[in-house]
Amino acid sequence: VAALPMNNVPAALAEIDRALGTLGARGVQVFTHVGGRPLDDPEFAPIFDKVVRQYDAPIWLHPARGPGFADYASERKSKYEIWWTFGWPYETSAAMARIVFSGMFDRLPEMRVITHHMGAMIPYFEGRVGPGWDQLGSRTSDEDYEALLRSMAKRPIDYFRMFYADTALSGSASGIRCGLDFFGIDHCLFGTDCPFDPEGGPMYIREIARAIDSLGLPDADRRKLYVDNAVRLLRLAP
Amino acid sequence: VAALPMNNVPAALAEIDRALGTLGARGVQVFTHVGGRPLDDPEFAPIFDKVVRQYDAPIWLHPARGPGFADYASERKSKYEIWWTFGWPYETSAAMARIVFSGMFDRLPEMRVITHHMGAMIPYFEGRVGPGWDQLGSRTSDEDYEALLRSMAKRPIDYFRMFYADTALSGSASGIRCGLDFFGIDHCLFGTDCPFDPEGGPMYIREIARAIDSLGLPDADRRKLYVDNAVRLLRLAP
Repeated sequence: VAALPMNNVPAALAEIDRALGTLGARGVQVFTHVGGRPLDDPEFAPIFDKVVRQYDAPIWLHPARGPGFADYASERKSKYEIWWTFGWPYETSAAMARIVFSGMFDRLPEMRVITHHMGAMIPYFEGRVGPGWDQLGSRTSDEDYEALLRSMAKRPIDYFRMFYADTALSGSASGIRCGLDFFGIDHCLFGTDCPFDPEGGPMYIREIARAIDSLGLPDADRRKLYVDNAVRLLRLAP
Repeated sequence: VAALPMNNVPAALAEIDRALGTLGARGVQVFTHVGGRPLDDPEFAPIFDKVVRQYDAPIWLHPARGPGFADYASERKSKYEIWWTFGWPYETSAAMARIVFSGMFDRLPEMRVITHHMGAMIPYFEGRVGPGWDQLGSRTSDEDYEALLRSMAKRPIDYFRMFYADTALSGSASGIRCGLDFFGIDHCLFGTDCPFDPEGGPMYIREIARAIDSLGLPDADRRKLYVDNAVRLLRLAP
């Protein structure tokens, strides 16, 4: 999977050709912002267009936030690593919302974005994403979000179901179940965050596999999660 | 339940006596910050001390964030109401973390804090709160968080289990199941966010009750969620 120099669009476009076209990479990874700017900035549109239309390759979405993103207006930085624990899933969720509401899925309906940490905040807060965002505009007076909502081809929540999610929740069976319920088995892939566990590698692989295996999924669904969905998304030989 | 003028501590202390002592209020509600300042600011300690030690009353924790809290460093405000959908649970989660890591539960172990939206981000991300925060300090070089971690009487995640949670997830059975799994039935209470649903009142009550009833809970657990836990926490006559 290719890393792209997103801060230089012509170089990113060239790297897509080199990595995917020449070297055989199966997709690209992008971070949730580019030097503080959102992915729906029109400058980045050619990158997504090329990855999707020319290569039909999946896009991994990884959060990026550091302690400099303060949690309180009175403070200069985020304490206790809150920026990591909660800030990373927040970043992913915000980036997903920007992709949805900026119309990127309308422009590129075949785009496949694999989100980290089991779709971040979307599954647990499907009620806020669903009936909450069905009321988009009701909380805002300085933008015409009601017109935006009317212009969308489907409910906001149905766009969020277009994302894919990995199982990297560090081992929570209950969370993985919630994520599977939201995205559906065909949009979920085994992922672990290895080696960032207290044991330095094996723990999250073991605990996430244990969590998945505790869910009592049908064999075909387990196989989709562990193998078949990746084979399909990455166009690997089975 | 009393609202407190948190920006004026002497007035807040007087209001606690008036509301809880004289009028018979059963607890207080606070927001996740006070004019941008965190609840673990030592100035607010007498408020928590009085509510807990003098009145042994529960504290409702409600998020507070507006569009002025930007999601990207390049922007001045949060777009598409992301500040509401994801920003509110983020605020609650950050405030819970500040309560935990500042030692408020060590100082006031009998403190009962009822968190909104089913404990916000904690249940779904229990893996980040658990093994993730078991590595507190490993991502930080300018604070001695490893010493803080060693000084804590138990794992960070076990402090997070001391919170209570309401079921106000707008109707998600899968999310409520995940929240119950994390906090345990004795720490969860029926809550709805009524009337902030698309129907202006009945929808979240109906859908959350439907979600709970779909979980197949034992009758005693259903009764705890709907009645008994509130009677116990608020010291109501059954």
